Amino acid sequence: MPPISNPSIIFNELPKGEPTLETLKIDESAQIDLEEELKENEIILKLVCVSLDPYMRGRMREEHIKSYSPAFPLNKPIGGHGVAKVIKSKSSRYEEGVHIYGVLPYTTYIRRMAPTEQEDAQNAKFFGGPALKILKNEENLSWSTYIGAAGMPGKTAYMAWKEYSPVQGHIGQAKVAYISAGSGPVGSLAIQMAKKDGYKVIASAGSDKKIQFCKDIGADVVFNYKTDNPDEIFAKEAPEGIDVNWVNVGGKAFETELAHSASHGRVIVCGWISAYNGKSDGITNLFQIVAKRLHVNGFIVGDLEPKYGSEFYSTVPKALASGEVKFSEVKYDGLDKIPQAFIDLLAGKQGGGDGLGKVVIEIK
Amino acid sequence: MPPISNPSIIFNELPKGEPTLETLKIDESAQIDLEEELKENEIILKLVCVSLDPYMRGRMREEHIKSYSPAFPLNKPIGGHGVAKVIKSKSSRYEEGVHIYGVLPYTTYIRRMAPTEQEDAQNAKFFGGPALKILKNEENLSWSTYIGAAGMPGKTAYMAWKEYSPVQGHIGQAKVAYISAGSGPVGSLAIQMAKKDGYKVIASAGSDKKIQFCKDIGADVVFNYKTDNPDEIFAKEAPEGIDVNWVNVGGKAFETELAHSASHGRVIVCGWISAYNGKSDGITNLFQIVAKRLHVNGFIVGDLEPKYGSEFYSTVPKALASGEVKFSEVKYDGLDKIPQAFIDLLAGKQGGGDGLGKVVIEIK
Repeated sequence: MPPISNPSIIFNELPKGEPTLETLKIDESAQIDLEEELKENEIILKLVCVSLDPYMRGRMREEHIKSYSPAFPLNKPIGGHGVAKVIKSKSSRYEEGVHIYGVLPYTTYIRRMAPTEQEDAQNAKFFGGPALKILKNEENLSWSTYIGAAGMPGKTAYMAWKEYSPVQGHIGQAKVAYISAGSGPVGSLAIQMAKKDGYKVIASAGSDKKIQFCKDIGADVVFNYKTDNPDEIFAKEAPEGIDVNWVNVGGKAFETELAHSASHGRVIVCGWISAYNGKSDGITNLFQIVAKRLHVNGFIVGDLEPKYGSEFYSTVPKALASGEVKFSEVKYDGLDKIPQAFIDLLAGKQGGGDGLGKVVIEIK
Repeated sequence: MPPISNPSIIFNELPKGEPTLETLKIDESAQIDLEEELKENEIILKLVCVSLDPYMRGRMREEHIKSYSPAFPLNKPIGGHGVAKVIKSKSSRYEEGVHIYGVLPYTTYIRRMAPTEQEDAQNAKFFGGPALKILKNEENLSWSTYIGAAGMPGKTAYMAWKEYSPVQGHIGQAKVAYISAGSGPVGSLAIQMAKKDGYKVIASAGSDKKIQFCKDIGADVVFNYKTDNPDEIFAKEAPEGIDVNWVNVGGKAFETELAHSASHGRVIVCGWISAYNGKSDGITNLFQIVAKRLHVNGFIVGDLEPKYGSEFYSTVPKALASGEVKFSEVKYDGLDKIPQAFIDLLAGKQGGGDGLGKVVIEIK
């Protein structure tokens, strides 16, 4: 068999504000020879599905600007969380046919050395597991679930809720949680975590379909952030204040949320989508952090994975398989759909319209 | 002896922005008869010294606006932390001659019932001690110390530093602390707490005299927030970021502080002086809370007093008496000085000029 095409998605152009079809491009120029003899410990992976997540917008920046995740280099393949299948292997740890989960380049075939023990130890220290985690999938979930509800977004909701929602201090009883972007892959899990802990859950979303989904998974009150007045809704539905504010969106709405925070409230800052395209509203009432004695925690899921990783994998996939925990996906077919899918994602229009759920790119 | 004058400081006029000489007024119209027979459990206190603190500006608002401390009613005496002497007593718990510390009305003589056990229990629940705490003062400190370094401001620094400065999570090693308003009664204690814990301490203050004081008590780097560029100073002095940011001032400077926060930094929000007179700058980079995985905690000292109260009183007065912990006071003589002293305090001009230290009003 001669070398075959090995398409990848490259970072083509720095976006100014919202990404366009020029931001990411498919590059089909590279080739790979799948017949070539592998070296000892080498493996070839083939992508099964990859994730698109809002945080990736932050990686599309000039390389000299520091942030928590490295900038994507221009004209090189982007990467992110994905599931791949080991299709060739000279590693005893990764047998042909197994599926792995990890941070992967978005290149159809990936020829690389199996991770060393050192690499795994380093990864475990920061992310609680090996660099390429073998998925046993005893629950027979679709592979895409492992980049969504059973992957990074699910972990984000599960671990941060466990770590940062409990009442701190000696005053106060948890009653009301507010979750913005409630229909998203993180928000929808956060809603279900909050309900399980007995909270009255207020959520927000941007369309009737998304609002209905939030209700279907248990939210008590759901409003449309585009048309409803959150100030009135919080005053009516949380007269004693919001005890846990799960922030996905931030922006000017955060001022209203602070104004309605309960004393000793916890603010879990998971994202600040409103600023990902560069716009950023000024928040003028941060004195409320003192006045309300708030506990505000930002986090990256990897920080919490050493503490909660095995608990997560031993409970969440089962709960997803049984239907106890609900989730929603929007699937795109093929790497070439990524440029448009990423635009859709940041615009909240998954699937090109009023889509709903975790964006998943499947690669046949 | 006929009834005598019982001067008090009343809340005379709602301030618009900065307080003026019309905001607070001395009222000498009331009288008290010190010869009158007391009822069972009644006591008469005479003020020895009272405190003026920036948070009191927040109480000078319209009564219908809720906040963490109640609004001062117009035309009634204001109140705050003070030390008083029991000059008459029919209470077995408060003998004549003892000194007490508590939240008192700023009225020269206070005739009241001794606190009931219920009142004390309620107070202990929220503030860790009785409503009127008897000061044994075995260290023979000046009474004014008990409203400053050995009182509410000292507790604020001591307790919040203990509670919120320790490293959370698995990454990071504490190295640099930044303390704004470093020469103030809270900031100066915070500087000394940070130094004791081995931090490199960067502080800011508004005059040469205040800067020198910060250095004298151990700060490694001190800049003038009115003339220096904090962005350059943090870049040079904290190239790996600020691990603990003790916020007294807030405002636009907070953006620069966020930009220079270290990963896993702790932000202790003790005050937001920049907004006390009503102005409030918008903070546009709160996404840094996620990017830097920050832990931001607001608090009121009473929240922490049940946990740290007895530790504080058993260690801090001793350390103040021995000179191990340093502090500075600006004394005003007489209740009638309060209207001007409060203006000076909010302008950072204690004593009418380049004053420095805890504002104390002594009443002869």
